Amino acid sequence: MKIAVFGTGEVGTAMATRLQSLGHDVVFGSREAGPDKEGVPVLSHADAARHGEWIVNAMHGEHAMKTFPGLPLEGKLLIDQGNWQSAIDGPITETLGESLQRLLPQTRVVKAMNFVSAALMGHPEKLEGKHTVFVAGNDAAARAEVTQLLESIGWQDVLDLGDLSACRAMESMGPLWIRLNSVLDTVLFDIQVVRKPS
Amino acid sequence: MKIAVFGTGEVGTAMATRLQSLGHDVVFGSREAGPDKEGVPVLSHADAARHGEWIVNAMHGEHAMKTFPGLPLEGKLLIDQGNWQSAIDGPITETLGESLQRLLPQTRVVKAMNFVSAALMGHPEKLEGKHTVFVAGNDAAARAEVTQLLESIGWQDVLDLGDLSACRAMESMGPLWIRLNSVLDTVLFDIQVVRKPS
Repeated sequence: MKIAVFGTGEVGTAMATRLQSLGHDVVFGSREAGPDKEGVPVLSHADAARHGEWIVNAMHGEHAMKTFPGLPLEGKLLIDQGNWQSAIDGPITETLGESLQRLLPQTRVVKAMNFVSAALMGHPEKLEGKHTVFVAGNDAAARAEVTQLLESIGWQDVLDLGDLSACRAMESMGPLWIRLNSVLDTVLFDIQVVRKPS
Repeated sequence: MKIAVFGTGEVGTAMATRLQSLGHDVVFGSREAGPDKEGVPVLSHADAARHGEWIVNAMHGEHAMKTFPGLPLEGKLLIDQGNWQSAIDGPITETLGESLQRLLPQTRVVKAMNFVSAALMGHPEKLEGKHTVFVAGNDAAARAEVTQLLESIGWQDVLDLGDLSACRAMESMGPLWIRLNSVLDTVLFDIQVVRKPS
């Protein structure tokens, strides 16, 4: 699969390198093309958008909303891992996932892994015990495709939360992630939704 | 222990009956005294406040903020299980736990179990597998006392989140609880924080 990861920070790098290791044809999308980063080509936003059949948003929400307009993303699937920077300790009015879907009506937006530690998102096995990753999106087929991708990464408990109105649940977990990170003094933690087997 | 549970709804009843079954001397605090509810005496707010060495808030936040002022709660420990009704799908500006502590500066407020299903809060064993309950409060000794109480109820994984600024994390979990309840179509679910043993 041709995948363009937008965002060259910790999250983007974790995803890009892991997806490349699984055999995907991965590039970064960045403000300017440049030398490879950790073995992954760095293209301009426009070239990366053209390359990717799938797009990964690993940028803050505020940045994503400015970056994506005008890029050739029609018909593509966009995995939104982002969060509003303002939502770290402030209230959420409009969710990022729903805002991106409105901005890009011809793109299938799937929210996933927006509050998974970067250290774990590509390597969930680094934390022993079953833990849960959420997906949400308005297109059920797109959610199923992302679920398959997550399972190929090693996620054993992918929980489908339905349409993008679930973004409020997923994006409201910022204060909990931040607090747990502080109290536990590690990024090696995650949430499991304990429930009866379905 | 003499315990007054404010709120006679599903949450208050779950807590009052379970605490009574553990041998505590439990009363409800209600707008008006009345006949026993499920074997627990129902006193007026003022009489219940006088009775309780510990107070449990099982009312919505908006109601709690109107009910507690003027009651004799000085020196007592208040377990706040409440949430703002407005926070179910709206943003949180001030947290309820911190608002109660400001309202009642002589009372030791401990936030706990604000997004645990009523069916589980008194009987965590109804859901197989380890799951986590959070406590937060400005007084470390009070957090330890509440931790002991929760363990006596059967909670095996009590996670101390520190002072009441953790209320933002705990009270922001509303949209997630609501969504999981809807998607899983049961109240028999809970969150576990998966992490390395400390």
